[in-house]
Amino acid sequence: MIDNDLLLRTINKESVERPPIWLMRQAGRILPEYRAIRSSLSGFIELVTTPHLAAEVTVQPVDILGVDAAIIFSDILVIPECMGLEYELIEKKGPYFPKTIKTKADIDKLISGKPAAEKLAYVYDALTLTKKELNGRVPLIGFAGAPWTLMSYMIEGQGSKTFSKAKAFLYKEPELAHLLLEKITVTIIEYLKLKKANGADVLQIFDSWAGMLNADLYAEFCIPYIKRILEEVTGVPKIVFSKGAYFSMNEIVGLGADVVGLDWTYDPSKFRAQFGSEQVIQGNLDPCVLYGAPEDVGNAALEMISEFGGRHICNLGHGVYPDTPLENVKHLINTVKSYKY
Amino acid sequence: MIDNDLLLRTINKESVERPPIWLMRQAGRILPEYRAIRSSLSGFIELVTTPHLAAEVTVQPVDILGVDAAIIFSDILVIPECMGLEYELIEKKGPYFPKTIKTKADIDKLISGKPAAEKLAYVYDALTLTKKELNGRVPLIGFAGAPWTLMSYMIEGQGSKTFSKAKAFLYKEPELAHLLLEKITVTIIEYLKLKKANGADVLQIFDSWAGMLNADLYAEFCIPYIKRILEEVTGVPKIVFSKGAYFSMNEIVGLGADVVGLDWTYDPSKFRAQFGSEQVIQGNLDPCVLYGAPEDVGNAALEMISEFGGRHICNLGHGVYPDTPLENVKHLINTVKSYKY
Repeated sequence: MIDNDLLLRTINKESVERPPIWLMRQAGRILPEYRAIRSSLSGFIELVTTPHLAAEVTVQPVDILGVDAAIIFSDILVIPECMGLEYELIEKKGPYFPKTIKTKADIDKLISGKPAAEKLAYVYDALTLTKKELNGRVPLIGFAGAPWTLMSYMIEGQGSKTFSKAKAFLYKEPELAHLLLEKITVTIIEYLKLKKANGADVLQIFDSWAGMLNADLYAEFCIPYIKRILEEVTGVPKIVFSKGAYFSMNEIVGLGADVVGLDWTYDPSKFRAQFGSEQVIQGNLDPCVLYGAPEDVGNAALEMISEFGGRHICNLGHGVYPDTPLENVKHLINTVKSYKY
Repeated sequence: MIDNDLLLRTINKESVERPPIWLMRQAGRILPEYRAIRSSLSGFIELVTTPHLAAEVTVQPVDILGVDAAIIFSDILVIPECMGLEYELIEKKGPYFPKTIKTKADIDKLISGKPAAEKLAYVYDALTLTKKELNGRVPLIGFAGAPWTLMSYMIEGQGSKTFSKAKAFLYKEPELAHLLLEKITVTIIEYLKLKKANGADVLQIFDSWAGMLNADLYAEFCIPYIKRILEEVTGVPKIVFSKGAYFSMNEIVGLGADVVGLDWTYDPSKFRAQFGSEQVIQGNLDPCVLYGAPEDVGNAALEMISEFGGRHICNLGHGVYPDTPLENVKHLINTVKSYKY
């Protein structure tokens, strides 16, 4: 039993008195309490791989901001890691993989499925500890990167403005791409099952680089794999957030996930006009709204709530940016929490 | 008089035997002849500011690839430069502005309009030389960055994954943002007039960071300024390319530019279904198609041509990437050139 079950009731299309709110990257640099822990460590990866610390920063926004859900502090790149591609996080640059995928032999060498997923004990331990510390206050969200997004990093070896190497792989080596996506997908499935088994109440799939593709590529290289994850990970509500994939919104909604995440470029009213009022939506304030005046933050939130008109989990359309003024984050959350449908 | 006037006839909605083709960034690293000149110089900016060299690399793709238009080799950042913000180009990192815009005083200090635009003699000289070397073979395209895109760099001081500083400025300081956009706009207008006076047959406006915004921001901070440029720069055809701004496509088409550029995410058939068959379109192959097999490149081009169904200037949906196999670029161009409507 969960005390604040607003998120779960919204997902189940039950009646709710207001939309729930949580923020992508709420466990992170916006909180001084997070920065204090982070600065005492050698790096981000130490935080990800140390269960009691990951649990501590996961719970911080529940305690300090009063959000309606916790999301486990982790990284989408633990999947490539457990498959055999180690990564580093270079300060102010982002992830870096010394080894990348270039050939079939590279793909063949990857571990996948249960043997890979089972290596991530530190994630499952962090979930167990977090559940204990949350003590039923709010639901706990687990997550994974989508297959295409993880594949992008495994090919590129780092972030990219264009992801042209990863996309080139789709055009040049479509069969190898499918082979790689398949191995990533079965690993994600086992990983998410283990997250659920260790206490995740809701699961979110992040397709962060969806917007680099187009409808044809998304239909071939993304939709079938996300579909399989949704079909095989059962008994837990699932959120699909494909950032920038406006061109495949029909197909994304058609996947039948419990919740569709929207980025800030997608107009709420247009979404409702296209897809009706019953699909549960998560999103989608522009994170940069939070740099503005507090009254504008509040107004933007109220406008969004009114445009979605229910079946809505308040969130940003992207992770909260690290230099966001904390008082505006609090004002956003309080505005939503004092709203009544 | 221009020998190959396919581009101009397409823009004028006259009958044409096939779509014209040129590629964004065709004068650049894909050509060994470009790399030879570039490597003999201290940097990119030396090439931009040396008229006979800029003219030479502008003409290269006409000679070597047989494209139907030349686009003057230059940089959108010459506008901030002439307004008083010098920039450097750091190899493998991109542009860097030591001074950025933070306050009203910073904006007040900027030169704008004719006095700023007139400082860019090297651009106009490059156009004059290029016209001479082209000797009427194909039309010459001039271009400018759109006000928002230029403002982004002037605030951020460099590229960014999120452009959150520039967007924060829109939310925090909307009046100052308008003041800055106004000064940039009047400078662009004078600049484009001078480009036209010095031989540009067509002008393109690049709103490269349009996709960072949303419909509301684009309506307030972009559309009115692009509209003003289109209204005040007369007697020359104009192309508007707002990358990623699917959310404002109604308003962009509504601007009434001669040509609308589309990025690779926008489905050609969907565009025609939404906006009819008469709007002249430029685009929009995914540049990564060019990493694939030659027959797939040809097929993708033919499919695109068929989906647009006329009133179409073939191009990519983004600049050609520097490591693109040259034989595929040639195959694309030859496929289009042997097509018959």
